[in-house]
Amino acid sequence: MDYIKEFSESDRFAKLLGIELLEVSKGYAKAKMKIRDIHLNSVNTVHGGAIFTLADYTFAIAANSHEKISVALNVNISFLKAVSEGTLFSEAKEMSINPKIATYNIEISNEKGELISTFHGMAYRKDKFLK
Amino acid sequence: MDYIKEFSESDRFAKLLGIELLEVSKGYAKAKMKIRDIHLNSVNTVHGGAIFTLADYTFAIAANSHEKISVALNVNISFLKAVSEGTLFSEAKEMSINPKIATYNIEISNEKGELISTFHGMAYRKDKFLK
Amino acid sequence: MDYIKEFSESDRFAKLLGIELLEVSKGYAKAKMKIRDIHLNSVNTVHGGAIFTLADYTFAIAANSHEKISVALNVNISFLKAVSEGTLFSEAKEMSINPKIATYNIEISNEKGELISTFHGMAYRKDKFLK
Amino acid sequence: MDYIKEFSESDRFAKLLGIELLEVSKGYAKAKMKIRDIHLNSVNTVHGGAIFTLADYTFAIAANSHEKISVALNVNISFLKAVSEGTLFSEAKEMSINPKIATYNIEISNEKGELISTFHGMAYRKDKFLK
Repeated sequence: MDYIKEFSESDRFAKLLGIELLEVSKGYAKAKMKIRDIHLNSVNTVHGGAIFTLADYTFAIAANSHEKISVALNVNISFLKAVSEGTLFSEAKEMSINPKIATYNIEISNEKGELISTFHGMAYRKDKFLK
Repeated sequence: MDYIKEFSESDRFAKLLGIELLEVSKGYAKAKMKIRDIHLNSVNTVHGGAIFTLADYTFAIAANSHEKISVALNVNISFLKAVSEGTLFSEAKEMSINPKIATYNIEISNEKGELISTFHGMAYRKDKFLK
Repeated sequence: MDYIKEFSESDRFAKLLGIELLEVSKGYAKAKMKIRDIHLNSVNTVHGGAIFTLADYTFAIAANSHEKISVALNVNISFLKAVSEGTLFSEAKEMSINPKIATYNIEISNEKGELISTFHGMAYRKDKFLK
Repeated sequence: MDYIKEFSESDRFAKLLGIELLEVSKGYAKAKMKIRDIHLNSVNTVHGGAIFTLADYTFAIAANSHEKISVALNVNISFLKAVSEGTLFSEAKEMSINPKIATYNIEISNEKGELISTFHGMAYRKDKFLK
């Protein structure tokens, strides 16, 4: 899946945050983000926006793994546990797919395996292709 | 509301993205973010994570404007229109508040007033205070 | 909008709950439901499913007011206040619309004007028409 | 768990819809609903409100299985496939729990095992007990 590597490489916002792709297959993606000072909010925990971005990145990779261009329509995210240090992992799994709509469950956990956040994304599948 | 200025100043992730607070009052906040190359994703539009962060920032300011420390429990975000340049604005309004739970509707629009995204956040209000 | 009347009349589940349409225009709908014993849950308050149904009914009417058949993709609902008696009102307003996707904000309140629940719905617009 | 049986029996709205509890354990519940004419909407498929109610019922049973009274704060539901006949099953699993907040993933499927809907619920745990 070379086009996915390219797809991932050109994501400047994910790069800014230090997100690294670990694994990808059809409808699946896993990534990590080492927590740094830049990710922190006013109360010294990882910003909801940084957690969202890590999850959204795996959502985008998983949704675009079928080569059809997919864009996010809607996301629901729950914040379960605040975290300040260590490494975050995000894993996206496809729940459903039809010609126009696909949905994904994403779990964000830390290096101890504690669940930090859950993310449910719905994507719209365009009639255009990535390559 | 000097403590809100301090609260906002110490948000390193919002700073990284170039988010600026425009207005704050009890249960209300408005902010802007000039779109830059760092905000873009693989298809050259503003990353969902950057839009989320701008909205989440105003959600946090509005929720913490009552001085009680408030943390995000859940967010639902809809992406209505892709955008690549210009300035994004986010406006957070309080929908409901009780001793433990408060909810906010946030609208993200561009400088032409087009609606880019809607964000609905639920916060848990702790028994601790910001100052 | 006679086809909307017909559309509403044929909704057997809404009828079972006693939901009445009060008003409809392009992208807008308002309805009410008098609380009865059948709507109650185990703790003697109106069941989340009954509140959801009232809101969903106005969501469907508003989304189908443009004559194109629209189906719900995703809903986010927040429960703000428990209620046991009186009458519930639901008002749906269109937030965005494009050829394929439309979104709606719905507010459910009681006869005192207290906000009971907020509901955010996203609909998929088919290439078929209601009449 | 006799108090759960009582809890379930007193849910008049679930009874109206013909929902039957199949299984319950700590943080888990499974139920079914045979599709009948009363569940249908204007386009002759099961009403979103009926699907929501079946899922919400298992959410409530799972959340209250710990004996502490739990109430729904927020739900996100995705509608993946329309259905008109047969039997629907809902299965609720606990994703996270702390003294105040618990979250559940619920899957609704039909008798062929096809995924009809996914439901993500967040509950607030009161300092009161069911028995």
